[in-house]
Amino acid sequence: MKKYKITVFGAGSWGSVLAHVLAENGHEVHLWTRNADQADEINHQHTNKKYLTDVQLSADLKVTNDLDQALEASDIYLLVIPTMGIRDLVREINEKIKSKKLFIHASKGLEQKSHKRISTIIKEEIDADKLEDVVVLSGPSHAEEVIKRDLTTVTAASENVESRKLVQEIFMNSYFRVYTNSDLAGVELGGALKNIIALGSGITVGLGYGDNARAALITRGLAEITRFGLCFGAQESTFMGLSGVGDLVVTGMSTHSRNFKCGYYIGQGMTPEEAVEKVGMVVEGFYTTKAVYEIAQEKNIDMPITNAIYQIITNQVEAKNASLDLMKREGKEEA
Amino acid sequence: MKKYKITVFGAGSWGSVLAHVLAENGHEVHLWTRNADQADEINHQHTNKKYLTDVQLSADLKVTNDLDQALEASDIYLLVIPTMGIRDLVREINEKIKSKKLFIHASKGLEQKSHKRISTIIKEEIDADKLEDVVVLSGPSHAEEVIKRDLTTVTAASENVESRKLVQEIFMNSYFRVYTNSDLAGVELGGALKNIIALGSGITVGLGYGDNARAALITRGLAEITRFGLCFGAQESTFMGLSGVGDLVVTGMSTHSRNFKCGYYIGQGMTPEEAVEKVGMVVEGFYTTKAVYEIAQEKNIDMPITNAIYQIITNQVEAKNASLDLMKREGKEEA
Repeated sequence: MKKYKITVFGAGSWGSVLAHVLAENGHEVHLWTRNADQADEINHQHTNKKYLTDVQLSADLKVTNDLDQALEASDIYLLVIPTMGIRDLVREINEKIKSKKLFIHASKGLEQKSHKRISTIIKEEIDADKLEDVVVLSGPSHAEEVIKRDLTTVTAASENVESRKLVQEIFMNSYFRVYTNSDLAGVELGGALKNIIALGSGITVGLGYGDNARAALITRGLAEITRFGLCFGAQESTFMGLSGVGDLVVTGMSTHSRNFKCGYYIGQGMTPEEAVEKVGMVVEGFYTTKAVYEIAQEKNIDMPITNAIYQIITNQVEAKNASLDLMKREGKEEA
Repeated sequence: MKKYKITVFGAGSWGSVLAHVLAENGHEVHLWTRNADQADEINHQHTNKKYLTDVQLSADLKVTNDLDQALEASDIYLLVIPTMGIRDLVREINEKIKSKKLFIHASKGLEQKSHKRISTIIKEEIDADKLEDVVVLSGPSHAEEVIKRDLTTVTAASENVESRKLVQEIFMNSYFRVYTNSDLAGVELGGALKNIIALGSGITVGLGYGDNARAALITRGLAEITRFGLCFGAQESTFMGLSGVGDLVVTGMSTHSRNFKCGYYIGQGMTPEEAVEKVGMVVEGFYTTKAVYEIAQEKNIDMPITNAIYQIITNQVEAKNASLDLMKREGKEEA
C-alpha cells in the first residue's frame, strides 16, 4: 500500500483518533491544534486527556500548533473541527498555500446563517487552482471504539471517483472499513441532520421513554431527514446507508454521543444552556437544528421533529410537553 | 369509539399484551390458549408468569382453552402464535366457522419448506366466503414496554383500506399509535427478516464487538432485507418505515428480543442448540434464516449476512469466524 503525507486539522476526540488510524496504516501523519499545551501532551505523553480517557495514541503522530508547518507538511488535508470554525480556517489556509491540496472533512454540521454544507464552504474559500477535490468521511463511528480497533465502517463520498477511492485506500484496514459513495450532498446532510435526531433521542430517553419510543423517533426522523435531503439533490439510497440509517442507529442506541447526552440532560429537566455546559464540548446538533429549522420554514418542508426540538432548545416549550407532541399526531398512512 | 368483540389466539407475551391493550380500549376481548392451566391463571390471577414477569393483565380478559367458544365469541380474530403453528390452527378454524371473519396477525416469520408469508397461508386455508380480509400488525414494540404504557408505534397493513383503518381504530390509544400501510408483503417480510438481523446483532455483541459494528450490521442488513423484499413485490419505502428500520433499530439496540438473546449466547460460545434451549421460547429467526437462505439460493439473491448466519446456526462455521467475514468483504461502492 502506498504511503502518504497527511495533515489532520483538529485534535478533538475524532480528529486524534482518525490521525491515529492513519498513523497505524503507516502514513506520515501531522496533527495540528491551536493549543500548544495539547500539542505538547500528544507529542510527549501520547495522550489527549481532555477528549480521550485511558487512550494511548500512536507515538508516530507529529503534532504542531504552527499552521505554516502543518500546511507545508503534506498535500492531503483532513479537517476535523467544529462546523463554526471551518470557514475561517479554510480562508486562512487558502492565503498560505501555493499548490493543489485534497481536502477531506469529517465534520457534521451546516453553517449558521448561510446554511451551507462544509464542502460548499471549502469550494468557496479555496481557489480553484489550489483545490484538488473535497471528500467527506462519515458514518457510525464512535471514536472510543475505533481506538480499540473495534470493527467500524464508514463512507467516503465525493463527486470525483478517484478522490473517494484515494480516501478509501488511505484509511482502509482490518478494523476500519471504508465504502465509497458518489452522493456528496446526501452523505454530508445525513451526517449533519442525524445530530438533530440524536438530540431528540436523548430527550426521549431523558424523559423516561423506552426503546419502542426511541425506535419510533429514529424511524420518523429518518423519513424527515430523507425528505429534507431530497429537496437538495441528495439520493434516497444514501439515507438507507451508513451515513443515514447507520449513523442514526449508532447514535440512537449509544450513550457515547455528545448530542445524545445533551438531549438526555434536557429530557431530565435541565435548561438547554445548562445541558450544553454540562456536556462541555461543542454540541453540533444545536446549530444544525437551528439551521435546518430556518431552511425548512423558508422552503416549506414538513419537519415536525426538527420543529419540536427547535422549540425545546430555544426555550419556547418544555421538553416534557414537546416530546410527547412529537408522536401524538393523528393516525395516518405511513408512507 | 365503537367497541368490538375480538378473539386473540395465543397467550405468549405479545398475544397477552395485545389482548390487554384491546381490553384497555374497552373492547370485549376473548383470549384463547391451548393450555388450561394458563387460561386459569390469567382468568383468576390476571398474570401470565411464564411469559411476563411482574405484569398484571386486565381483569376484563376472558380466557378460554375451548376453541369453539373462542371462535363463536367474535368476528375479528387476532393470531399471535408462532409461524409454524399457523397453518394447522387456521385450517381447524376454517372447518369450524360459518360466517365471515377479519383475520389480523402479529406473527413474524415465513413457513418452512413452502416459504410462504402468513397472510398467504391464511388466504389458502380460509374459504373465500369466510374471509373478510387479512391485516398484519408489525413494528418496533417490545411487549414489556407496551404493558407499561410506554409510547409505542406500529403499522397495520392490508391491501384493503377499510380493513387496515379498522385495525388502526381498534388498537389506537394515547400510548399505542397505529399507522396504516397498503404494502402487506413489505410489512410481513420486514417483520420476518428482521429476526435474521436480530440474531446477527446478538452474535456480534456476544463476540464482543461494539456499537459501530452493530450499526454496520444493521445497516447492511437493512439493505439485504430490502433487496429481498423488492424481489417479492414489496415497496422500498416500507423498509424505511416502522416495520423495517424501526423494528431493526429496536431489535438492534435492545436486549429484550429473544432472537437477539439467542444470537448473543451463540456469540459467547454456545452451540445453536444450547442457545435455543437457554432462550426457552420459539426463536423465529432460526426458521426464517433457513427459509430465506433457501429462497435466496433458488432465486440467486445476494444475501451475505443471511448466508453467514445460516452457516452458523447449521453448525457449518463457528460464530467467531463467520461473523468477522460478514464485514470483511472488499472495499466497494456503498449503493
